[in-house]
Parts: sequence; C-alpha cells; structure tokens
Amino acid sequence: MKTKSVKGTRDYLPQEAELRDRMQKKIVDIYRQNGFSRIMTPAVEDIENLDKSDGGDNLNLIFKIMKRGDKLQKALENGKENELCDMGLRYDLTLPLTRYFAANRQNLPYPFKAIQTDKVYRAENPQKGRLREFMQCDIDVIGDPEPECEIELIAVTAKALRALDIGSFTVRVNDRTVLNAMLSAFGFANEELPSVCISFDKFDKIGVDGVSNELTEKGYDKSAIEKLSDVLSKLPLTLDKVTEIVGEETTARLSKIINASREIANGNYGVEFDISLVRGQGYYTGTVFEVRSENFGSSVAGGGRYDNLIGKFIGENIPACGFSIGFERIFSILIEQKRAVSSKNKIAIFYEDNFSDVYAKAEELRKEYDVAIFKKPKKQGAFLNRLQTSGFVGFAYADGNVKLFEK
Amino acid sequence: MKTKSVKGTRDYLPQEAELRDRMQKKIVDIYRQNGFSRIMTPAVEDIENLDKSDGGDNLNLIFKIMKRGDKLQKALENGKENELCDMGLRYDLTLPLTRYFAANRQNLPYPFKAIQTDKVYRAENPQKGRLREFMQCDIDVIGDPEPECEIELIAVTAKALRALDIGSFTVRVNDRTVLNAMLSAFGFANEELPSVCISFDKFDKIGVDGVSNELTEKGYDKSAIEKLSDVLSKLPLTLDKVTEIVGEETTARLSKIINASREIANGNYGVEFDISLVRGQGYYTGTVFEVRSENFGSSVAGGGRYDNLIGKFIGENIPACGFSIGFERIFSILIEQKRAVSSKNKIAIFYEDNFSDVYAKAEELRKEYDVAIFKKPKKQGAFLNRLQTSGFVGFAYADGNVKLFEK
Repeated sequence: MKTKSVKGTRDYLPQEAELRDRMQKKIVDIYRQNGFSRIMTPAVEDIENLDKSDGGDNLNLIFKIMKRGDKLQKALENGKENELCDMGLRYDLTLPLTRYFAANRQNLPYPFKAIQTDKVYRAENPQKGRLREFMQCDIDVIGDPEPECEIELIAVTAKALRALDIGSFTVRVNDRTVLNAMLSAFGFANEELPSVCISFDKFDKIGVDGVSNELTEKGYDKSAIEKLSDVLSKLPLTLDKVTEIVGEETTARLSKIINASREIANGNYGVEFDISLVRGQGYYTGTVFEVRSENFGSSVAGGGRYDNLIGKFIGENIPACGFSIGFERIFSILIEQKRAVSSKNKIAIFYEDNFSDVYAKAEELRKEYDVAIFKKPKKQGAFLNRLQTSGFVGFAYADGNVKLFEK
Repeated sequence: MKTKSVKGTRDYLPQEAELRDRMQKKIVDIYRQNGFSRIMTPAVEDIENLDKSDGGDNLNLIFKIMKRGDKLQKALENGKENELCDMGLRYDLTLPLTRYFAANRQNLPYPFKAIQTDKVYRAENPQKGRLREFMQCDIDVIGDPEPECEIELIAVTAKALRALDIGSFTVRVNDRTVLNAMLSAFGFANEELPSVCISFDKFDKIGVDGVSNELTEKGYDKSAIEKLSDVLSKLPLTLDKVTEIVGEETTARLSKIINASREIANGNYGVEFDISLVRGQGYYTGTVFEVRSENFGSSVAGGGRYDNLIGKFIGENIPACGFSIGFERIFSILIEQKRAVSSKNKIAIFYEDNFSDVYAKAEELRKEYDVAIFKKPKKQGAFLNRLQTSGFVGFAYADGNVKLFEK
C-alpha cells in the first residue's frame, strides 16, 4: 500500500484538524449571525456544466470521473476521449452556487445570502505549493444590485477575519467601471480596456516601466500610456483625484461603499481605495475587493461583483456579489504560529482492573477537560512522552488527580 | 446548463444544511470530550490502494478519476482500460484511516482514538434510495485489544446518539468467536462457518425455515442444522444459555462487555446480547454491535472489532475496533420530523435610505437573533411570505421592533 496521501493532497493531524474545525465554525457562526445561510452541494458536477462554465484556466485543471459499466465500454469503443467521462470534481464553489440557485430558487429568499465552505479540486502542479484538494469559504449575495450589498459583504467578512484573530488588516476596494472610465479618459479605446487591465494588473510585479513597456509593445496610444504611467508613479491615488479625471457620477457608488465601510470599521481595520486593484477573474463587472493582512504580508480574502455570470447560466439578468476568505492561507499561517486550537485541554486517564471507577472519574473530569481513557501502559515514560507531543496537557490515575506536563 | 445535481447526489437547502451542521457538531463535540481526535484525509485515494483494499462489493462501486495530460494520452494509446485512471473517490473511511495511521503513526498516540466524519462515494443504483455521495461518521480505536475498548466505544456512541435526541434505543452485541464456537458445537466444520454465517445473517428476512433450507441446500450436516434451527426458533437466546453450549471461557469477554455497558447505560438505553447479530462485512473478527432505534424502527449505528484489517495493509499485527453512526439515516428521519435546527431564530430587518442606522440596529438584535439585512421590498407581502417559508421567524424596520410571523 502507498501510505502517502495522493499528490497535492494532505492528511491532517489531530491538532491541525481541530484548528480547521474551529476556523470553519467561527466563520460560519458569524456569517449565520448576519443572516447568511449555509448551503451544501455535491463535490461532483456534471462534466458538461463544468466544461461550459466561466472558469478560465481552471477548466484545464478539472479532475474528470470515468463513466462506468456499459456506458464506459461504448465510449471506449468509440475511442473519443471526451466521451469517457460524465462527471468532474468542482474546481470552485461559484458554478455549484449558480446551479443550486437555478434549481432551488423557488425555496429560497430573494435576494439570497449564501454561505459555502467546502472542498474544491484542481489538478494544479503541487510543486508551486498549491494543493489539489483545498477548502474554499465564500459568502455571496444573489439578487441585490445595491451598493449596500458590498458594504455588508465587507463588514461581515471583516468580522469573520477579526474572529479568526489574524491581526491588523486593510480592505482595499476598487471598481472596474471606475478604472475603465479612467483608462478611457486617458485615451484608450473601449475594446482595448480588457487587455490594458491585464497589463495593469501586473503592476505589483513588473512596476511602472514594465506596464508601460508591455502596453507599448501592444501598440496602444502613446499619450494614453504616458498618462497612465504618470498616475502609476504617483500611487496611492486618492479617490478625489480619480473623481477629478472621471467625474463625480462615475465614482459616487464606490465613494459611498468606501465611506460607509470605513464608518462601520470604526478604526478596527482599514478600508482604502486602490485604483491598482484589478483582480484577475474575467467575470467581475464592478466593485472588486481584497483584504491584505499586515502580519501575514499577503492577501487573505478577495471578491467582487459579478452581475453577468449567473444570468448567463440561467438565461436571466441576475446581479451577484461575493467575498471569499483564503482559508488555506490563513490555516497555514495560524498553524505555523502554533495557535491554541482548542477551548478545552485534553488529558489521559489510566485504568488497570478498575475500568468502571475510572470511567466514572473520567466523566467528572470531562467538565473541565477532554478526557481519553487508556489502559495503564507498561512503558509509561515513552507513553506519556507521546501523549505530550500529540497535544495532551496531562494525565491522571484512578484517583482523578490531574498531573500537568511541564512545558 | 443542467440545474439538477448529478444522479445520486443532493443539494441541501439552508435548513437542511443547518441541521447537518448541528448533528455533526454534536457528534464531534461528544467524541472529542471523550478523548477521541478528529482526523481529516483527502476524498481521493490512489487507485491501487482502493483496488487492493478489503471493500468486498464496494470495490465495484468506485468512482475512478482519469489521468491527465501526457499520461492519459499514453494510456489511451495502450488501450488498457485499467490504466486510464490514477485515483478514485474513497468508498468508506476505513481504508483512508488505515493509510493515515500507517503514514502518521509516529505523530499519534498509541492506542489511537480517531474521529472521522466526512463524505464518501459509491456508484450505487440511486433507485434503491441510496445516495452516491454521503456522510460517514466513525470512531475507531487502533491498537487496543482489551474488552474495555468495546465498552468505551459503546458508551461513547450511545452518548452521541442521546445528544442527537433520537428517542429510545438498544445496543445489540454479539461476538463472532462466540457465534462460531456455538456453530462448531452444533457440528458444523470450521471451513463451513463463514458460509453458515452468511445464511444465518439472513434470519431476519427469511426466518428459521429459510435459513434451514439454505443450509440444507448447501449440503451441511443435518443434525447441526437441526440444532441451529432449534436455537433460532427460541430466540432471543440468553448469554447464559449460549454459555452452557460453548463454555464459560468463550463467553467471558463478551459477558464483561455487556455487563459493564449495561452498568454505564444505567437504564438510559438498552444493552442486549443478540446471537443472531452477524453484520455483513467479512473483516469483523470478534465483537460486533448494532444500535436499533425504537422510534425509527431501524438500525442507526453499527460496528465491531476488525483485528486483521489494518495489519494486513501495513504488514504488522494491529488490533482495531470501530463504531459508525448512520448519519444519513438519522438526518433523513430528523428532517422529516421537522426538528428545530437552530438555537437562534432568524429575522430580517429592512433598510430604505438609512442603511447605517439599520446596520447598527441589526448589530443590537444579533444578541438575540440571526439577522439578515434586506432593502425594503416593493411587494412586501410576497417577500415576507417567502421569508417565512424559508425559515425566518419575523422581521423589523429601522426602529428594531421585531414582528414575529403568526404560525
């Protein structure tokens, strides 16, 4: 037998599993308090749904499940590779949410505020440090076009992040329509905007000159590129400055979101306008946001408005906006910091030929501790050692006097 | 897009998802209190591990995941069906537990008390009312040969079932070595015992005559069949009666388990010896148990000792015993009974052009309710109706006065 878990997947040791449970519970509890409802969908989806979905590069990373029985035999005889499969593992939670909403909308409130926290699968190259099976943790509001929707998503996600105790963080906010209006004002043509955004999005990595060179190579208007470079060299740009360029009407919605979010934040976290925030996904249509943790030096959540995605799938115009917490990133940092994972400490209690008494004593001790019963080991030193390294804090005999391990 | 979830899988509506969450939390909390540790393993396993595992008929129900890229191309050119896949979805949690234990044992206490609650996958025929994606909910003790291990597993599983509030239930206990000793005493040959057990296990469905006829067809000793039929016609058989047949030494261990379990049960649930309990799985080597719910009229948990299974995989003799709660069965009955799923009630609060005030009011109300913020709808009657049918108990305007729906 191969004892290692398959490539790109992980086994979680007891302390890791407990931290993951507690993280998930904290997040879901806060989302529920705020009137969001958890839904659950299968990890497997119809292969055609997956193939036709708006997943960009992720469509190349789908794990496909083979047909079975006669259907597989027929497909093998036909020899067509794409007919060998009938299902695939989901690569994100957005396609399942869309399908779920279409299938169950008559039983859901509208607007619908959804929580999803579940595993997704991508055939990534694990050498890049990416997992092939990982948790996503999303809230989405389906059916609400108002800016209050964004304000609430930011407030609720920030609450969850504070509950996870990740230290100080800043929510960065932008709006693609504002960004596009600015690029238009600089002189880029409408049809050039998506390509300009792709270059612009690399600003963090390649700097002003990199972006400028790339746009020049793409053959765009020299004066437009110069105006953009000028702005990029003066970052951070205030929303007032951008408003001067694109007009008050264009920035009013974004301005409202940022001001209200800052008011709710009440100094507990930052809320900043960031014209350089694009976020890769092609499906975002308006507001985009990202949370940067100062302690972790990285993005720990992101999302935005995607008003055309759900409608495209169910043939009807339906606005939507979502925010996703980077569960795996936060988990990997918290576990490195050896955060206390449990509210209760775990101890062992030993029995010899007095199991009933020890069982009763264990029940008493369970008011204060999680208590595991073991037969008194022959090699007690080695046994206690192993208990300590696997997270127990102490032990007791039948008298129930708890001896705590020295740290 | 196909909006239905794929065959044999389910979407869960918010109230269903909440009940599932609460069931799982109750079970895991109790298991943790009792010193068991949750572990997490991937839903995908190496296809060879799965194929070589001890899963009986389940091996025909594995969902197989196709290779990708060059490896798939090569396999397609070779044209061998069984080379097309490199992974499969797990069909139970026992193989992953075995692999996990082998891979991580140096970091685990020994004996190791494991909790697993996770999804498994089987290509069942959904017409039989079986799901293809479903939850299993197991505790296992690896490395403990003592009868106290069984006593604890029964006590802890019963605690979890009581926490789920499923009404009265009885734990039925048997030991395959006792059953085998009785069958030997009747005159069946050792090599006949597995086959006799298979017929015997059908007793519930086909009755004394059915079992007797089947054994006669198999050509077994007439006098042995008569003695067995005689016992079957006088069920329930006491352990004392069986002890008379097989001797005290053979039943001592089982007797200890039943007496101690009854003492711990303290009248809160029944613990009964049941010589007719076999349980299908071939891998059980000693004690087997099953919990019968009187209200549900069905088995809601089952398990037993499987001392040879783990050793077979990791090449070393390792005793093991486990108990599995029938999560899906309990869920489907509780949801039918419309059990209250939430500790907190959910209400809506409506804003117009006063979002900040309403947000602050919602925060206050969250001490008592889960509160969802919505823009005041134009068609308020229809909107409130939908809220009520999807589980909300009331609503409020900006003044925060909660109006509860009439029931």
